[in-house]
Amino acid sequence: MGIVLGPNRYGKAETRLVRVDRDGDAHQIKDLNVGVSLAGDMTDVHLTGDNAAVLPTDTQKNTVFALARKHGVDTAEGFGLLLARHFVASQPTIRRACVTVEEYAWDRVPVTGHSFVRRGQEVRTARVFHEEGRTHVVSGLRDLTVLNTTGSEFRGYIQDEFTTLPEAGDRVLATEVRAEWRHRDADGYWDASYAEVRRVLLETFAGTYSRSLQQTLYAMGRRVLEERPELCEIRLVMPNKHHFAVDLEPFGMDNPNEVFLAADRPYGLIEGTVLRDDAPAAEEVWR
Amino acid sequence: MGIVLGPNRYGKAETRLVRVDRDGDAHQIKDLNVGVSLAGDMTDVHLTGDNAAVLPTDTQKNTVFALARKHGVDTAEGFGLLLARHFVASQPTIRRACVTVEEYAWDRVPVTGHSFVRRGQEVRTARVFHEEGRTHVVSGLRDLTVLNTTGSEFRGYIQDEFTTLPEAGDRVLATEVRAEWRHRDADGYWDASYAEVRRVLLETFAGTYSRSLQQTLYAMGRRVLEERPELCEIRLVMPNKHHFAVDLEPFGMDNPNEVFLAADRPYGLIEGTVLRDDAPAAEEVWR
Amino acid sequence: MGIVLGPNRYGKAETRLVRVDRDGDAHQIKDLNVGVSLAGDMTDVHLTGDNAAVLPTDTQKNTVFALARKHGVDTAEGFGLLLARHFVASQPTIRRACVTVEEYAWDRVPVTGHSFVRRGQEVRTARVFHEEGRTHVVSGLRDLTVLNTTGSEFRGYIQDEFTTLPEAGDRVLATEVRAEWRHRDADGYWDASYAEVRRVLLETFAGTYSRSLQQTLYAMGRRVLEERPELCEIRLVMPNKHHFAVDLEPFGMDNPNEVFLAADRPYGLIEGTVLRDDAPAAEEVWR
Amino acid sequence: MGIVLGPNRYGKAETRLVRVDRDGDAHQIKDLNVGVSLAGDMTDVHLTGDNAAVLPTDTQKNTVFALARKHGVDTAEGFGLLLARHFVASQPTIRRACVTVEEYAWDRVPVTGHSFVRRGQEVRTARVFHEEGRTHVVSGLRDLTVLNTTGSEFRGYIQDEFTTLPEAGDRVLATEVRAEWRHRDADGYWDASYAEVRRVLLETFAGTYSRSLQQTLYAMGRRVLEERPELCEIRLVMPNKHHFAVDLEPFGMDNPNEVFLAADRPYGLIEGTVLRDDAPAAEEVWR
Repeated sequence: MGIVLGPNRYGKAETRLVRVDRDGDAHQIKDLNVGVSLAGDMTDVHLTGDNAAVLPTDTQKNTVFALARKHGVDTAEGFGLLLARHFVASQPTIRRACVTVEEYAWDRVPVTGHSFVRRGQEVRTARVFHEEGRTHVVSGLRDLTVLNTTGSEFRGYIQDEFTTLPEAGDRVLATEVRAEWRHRDADGYWDASYAEVRRVLLETFAGTYSRSLQQTLYAMGRRVLEERPELCEIRLVMPNKHHFAVDLEPFGMDNPNEVFLAADRPYGLIEGTVLRDDAPAAEEVWR
Repeated sequence: MGIVLGPNRYGKAETRLVRVDRDGDAHQIKDLNVGVSLAGDMTDVHLTGDNAAVLPTDTQKNTVFALARKHGVDTAEGFGLLLARHFVASQPTIRRACVTVEEYAWDRVPVTGHSFVRRGQEVRTARVFHEEGRTHVVSGLRDLTVLNTTGSEFRGYIQDEFTTLPEAGDRVLATEVRAEWRHRDADGYWDASYAEVRRVLLETFAGTYSRSLQQTLYAMGRRVLEERPELCEIRLVMPNKHHFAVDLEPFGMDNPNEVFLAADRPYGLIEGTVLRDDAPAAEEVWR
Repeated sequence: MGIVLGPNRYGKAETRLVRVDRDGDAHQIKDLNVGVSLAGDMTDVHLTGDNAAVLPTDTQKNTVFALARKHGVDTAEGFGLLLARHFVASQPTIRRACVTVEEYAWDRVPVTGHSFVRRGQEVRTARVFHEEGRTHVVSGLRDLTVLNTTGSEFRGYIQDEFTTLPEAGDRVLATEVRAEWRHRDADGYWDASYAEVRRVLLETFAGTYSRSLQQTLYAMGRRVLEERPELCEIRLVMPNKHHFAVDLEPFGMDNPNEVFLAADRPYGLIEGTVLRDDAPAAEEVWR
Repeated sequence: MGIVLGPNRYGKAETRLVRVDRDGDAHQIKDLNVGVSLAGDMTDVHLTGDNAAVLPTDTQKNTVFALARKHGVDTAEGFGLLLARHFVASQPTIRRACVTVEEYAWDRVPVTGHSFVRRGQEVRTARVFHEEGRTHVVSGLRDLTVLNTTGSEFRGYIQDEFTTLPEAGDRVLATEVRAEWRHRDADGYWDASYAEVRRVLLETFAGTYSRSLQQTLYAMGRRVLEERPELCEIRLVMPNKHHFAVDLEPFGMDNPNEVFLAADRPYGLIEGTVLRDDAPAAEEVWR
């Protein structure tokens, strides 16, 4: 019975790259947080400390900056593809690269062409997996917080010895959407696709009469796939940000769903995947 | 030589109140984080544990919810005034109340009248101090992150034995504005005033050619007071969110201010006050 | 081509349970953060909003508290097993349960038998997966921050066009260990096992002359498996918390590895698994 | 009526300095987070952008590292004094310096003389104010989390129309102590003093039968001053980390103060000062 090295990878996390494009009258800005993770035959470095196969994470960071200068940064997905392909092509010891990108959006302050204010709503994300002959691109977002003040109920669930929750015919439903959707192909109109998926997620959350957060989650995922043929899978993680109607009876008041306590912990957590039945397997991009 | 009780106060921090107004076709939502802090003659509770003068923080929390139901929530400032006056009026042992409010903004998702998405940009703040005969109102914001890609230099500073910073003729200037401005009076058009101050802050940051972050800070503060006669003082805290142009020469590339590392720590921190020379003293509201 | 529901689960995250045992002269305290995640046939709830198969997350939370009262809390692993088995046994619609536990340690303040101070070092973790006929237990820790002031080098790595890092013959090595180790069986002496694994991790980090963080990671994992026959796999995530020797030459000083800047971002990130070659598969417990 | 520049200061926040002392068999480590804030006649920089009086925050950072090399780092207080005096002495435009230090404690891993594990309990703090002829030193700590499982009641408080809290004869009392104490003089045995104050705080929290958190706070502060003649003032901020006994009656169980929900928000917040009646004024060090 032996002890062996299992799956492993190494990389540089959280390289904060800001790229300014000064061409034209108005400047453009890209604000990214880039993570690189590489894998290959790394047995020697783990077992003997021989670093001959190691591309230092410091060099990975330098590469992020250098390629941003050389090729510019168009989209999170495009830049992730560029980096992932570069690393795999550059060294025989690097077999697989996974690049993750977070993008922070900025709006213009209209006074000048060089002034910006951070938008602060959702963070856009991308992850790219690449090895020879196989490339996966996943787009996504996190921290998109949404709320319906009505149009949500929760009834008909299991009652057991530990049930105290009363059924709710009309409740506030709020969640902070984390969604990631996988593209069929490694090329696409990333910005246009992102804008449309975001719109569909928002509109479906808003427009769905909800009998449970699971139902809302599935509706959002299904609708995205129905509308976006370039996608084959979507994964959603949606915490139930509970808003409890405060009991005001002790003070001689009613509370017709007007005054709520927004609670922190604990919270419900709903996770689900919606996919096409012909979606190719791609577990490696999700790790 | 004796040991004595000095300044003290007690209260409930971070009551997360969400108020839904269901009148009319479209719902309205107010999302607040309320802090209450009370002071008075609290010697007995500290020295002997006699709680006869104590309004429990649990009751303070209940009061936040009950008054939200009874009177609604118009603005952060208005609700803070309501609470502060209530506490001082309600009990002889409560001489001073300080109420702080953070407000989180939501945008509508236009599909329905009851769907919202958290805006995520700056947090609006208010603080109200009230004791008999004296009331102060301070409005403000935090987390308003702004950036100019040009129009900023830093030169002509002290050179000493520990100086290594080269002078910069053209740099990225970025900061996360924390600003609080004091009103002359305890009544006002709070929403209109807020919107205008925010606009002036953004436009002045954008439109000022900057020789230092101090100069920019002062310009922002001064301009707010010039434009808003209802205000008598403004305090600004502005970290210098350093964006370092990456040295790409080792890779045979120039970097004409296009590729930056957004750094975390350490950071410069600039704090300043701008006020009218006839502004009445009000140190107690700032603590 | 159809759109289908893929993997999904739901549960209650972050139930903060504190259990006091008042038997005996000195009280005992257990301070846990419990997460529950359940799966089964949840098609209807997603597709039609029929909640007949749903055990509300509110009930899951109640169950955490009720079982803590009924059975006490001995260890994170034991309590996780109790909960996971309860949920699967209680309802036919619940096929799989995953329970995660974080445990915060407290030391006694020796003045009384009822006074405690939070230890604040690493957080102990456990995760339990249970379905009929299959149970996995993973113990672990996070936030164990360790540092060697010498005994670490980094040399002999790939040099490419983007390399600027000089080789280091003697460097500070620091990391924040996240480790999780899987038990062969679902019963064990959890506390004794934990204490020994923690000791081995610390001692191996300290006692290994390091040629790379990968080598140190593997040494730590291998040593744990060598010493603990009850374990079959260990996964480690170790960020390289860079400590850069500050260049003091501009000030006419040398810096013989005495003065360091502790950097935040970016950071190297090393992830690796060490396992026995006869370890049974258990991917489902790691998700 | 004119608009004028009010109080202002500038500096470098969060310089993360790690100092290794390699003399002797076993290495010593000091792990600090240093903040510098300077003030003087800064009118020109604010009004005209003339930087002639400005010591760049980058230079301030360099100075932290250089003085750490030149003089070593004995204690947080001593290093703060060194820095504050250096800045005021070095430039005529710098009239006042405030240096804040956070210190993170490490324990030895006994295998080697060069291996450490971060202790993780409280963070030690220091703040030093210096101008010509006046120096103040404040020591402190934060994040010291303590809990009594009994020996605490809360009764006899005000009852008003919004009261729902039942009186408690026996409750869990938990808080996260933030304490800062001011020394009479600018020299002292800082480490010995710190250790004793910490001990007194812990023992008094544990040993005091509590009728309110205010009473406990005052007892802690008073006892520190009674025991430590070198101190003249102490300020404490103590959130009430509520532990609510869970109502298990719906499940047919009692709960004799055994099972608690540790709540996040809202929380009570108690702030108080204890001082000697001959303590000299020193408001400037607390800002």
